[in-house]
Amino acid sequence: MTSHSVLHMSMSLDGYVAVPDDGPGMGLGVDGGVLHDWLGPSTAERPWFDPPGVSGQVFAELMTTGAVVVGRKTFEYAGQWDGDHHGVPIFVATRDAAVHDVRPPYVHVVDDDLATLKAWAKEAAGDADVLVHGADLARACLEAGVLDDLELAVVPVLLGGGRRLVDALGTRVALEQTRVLVAPAVTHLRYRVVR
Amino acid sequence: MTSHSVLHMSMSLDGYVAVPDDGPGMGLGVDGGVLHDWLGPSTAERPWFDPPGVSGQVFAELMTTGAVVVGRKTFEYAGQWDGDHHGVPIFVATRDAAVHDVRPPYVHVVDDDLATLKAWAKEAAGDADVLVHGADLARACLEAGVLDDLELAVVPVLLGGGRRLVDALGTRVALEQTRVLVAPAVTHLRYRVVR
Repeated sequence: MTSHSVLHMSMSLDGYVAVPDDGPGMGLGVDGGVLHDWLGPSTAERPWFDPPGVSGQVFAELMTTGAVVVGRKTFEYAGQWDGDHHGVPIFVATRDAAVHDVRPPYVHVVDDDLATLKAWAKEAAGDADVLVHGADLARACLEAGVLDDLELAVVPVLLGGGRRLVDALGTRVALEQTRVLVAPAVTHLRYRVVR
Repeated sequence: MTSHSVLHMSMSLDGYVAVPDDGPGMGLGVDGGVLHDWLGPSTAERPWFDPPGVSGQVFAELMTTGAVVVGRKTFEYAGQWDGDHHGVPIFVATRDAAVHDVRPPYVHVVDDDLATLKAWAKEAAGDADVLVHGADLARACLEAGVLDDLELAVVPVLLGGGRRLVDALGTRVALEQTRVLVAPAVTHLRYRVVR
């Protein structure tokens, strides 16, 4: 089995992954929770969510990735996941050398180029996939040609504003539609990046 | 059967319905044809396209609508369809009173408000649905609360720029996901606007 780098994102039909007022500890923005309705209620136990049916399958895939690569902003907005995202190494990509609050044992702050970062994350993940987290990082990975797959939960709402998945990428990226899973109030679209 | 107003659109995964250089006679923009790949080759005969499988079903639904409502710009970009879009009344919405080149018998240029326009189109369509055509008109119809359904062909490509389906709508619109049809290189998502 070949390890892939996979972006998991929930997206509104008009292409937003967060409402305008997203910020630290509020990654989807105030009143942006509709994007995660498909996950159902969260719990303090792991796994955090237990969505039914095919949504559960997609969430289980996310939770069996072998490493997480995340942008600095998303990492902070998510409250640093209290230092632990399903017990796998977390690589926080940043250009800010003044980052100090690393949380052992999982969190590694790295300023390498994305190709090197991907190689590190894949080595850490072994045969498992690498979870790519955050819109800015996704864009950077697409531009650097190091994103393998996109797994998007398309949510039935027009948000009308906010942070876009990839805004004006500036280059065309061909995709192969590799899987579609349909749940009552969300559609899970999976694509492979064609290079 | 209740007649609905239905927006049919092909959209890239990053939410574009045309590449940046769209213009008269080139509605998708130069090199924007990838958005219509799912339709297959066009012919001079009616119907213009004959896509296989579920894509054929969706196209047949478009071609059995009973009236077309279209914005002025889209109408021009589409070459006015040579005055005939599958033999049904065409209502061209415009605020420009200087429009002269109406083509009988199908094309009606109207400057009424959208609610009145919708009522006219539904009366013309009878039991059939009304086809809503064009991103600007779709946005106006959403804002005016007169769009009933969206039928989107999500195409496996990131275009990286162009004209968006609805850009910064400024209001949230709740949708009900009513149908998902999967073809090899396109996914057809259908939604009902929830008011």
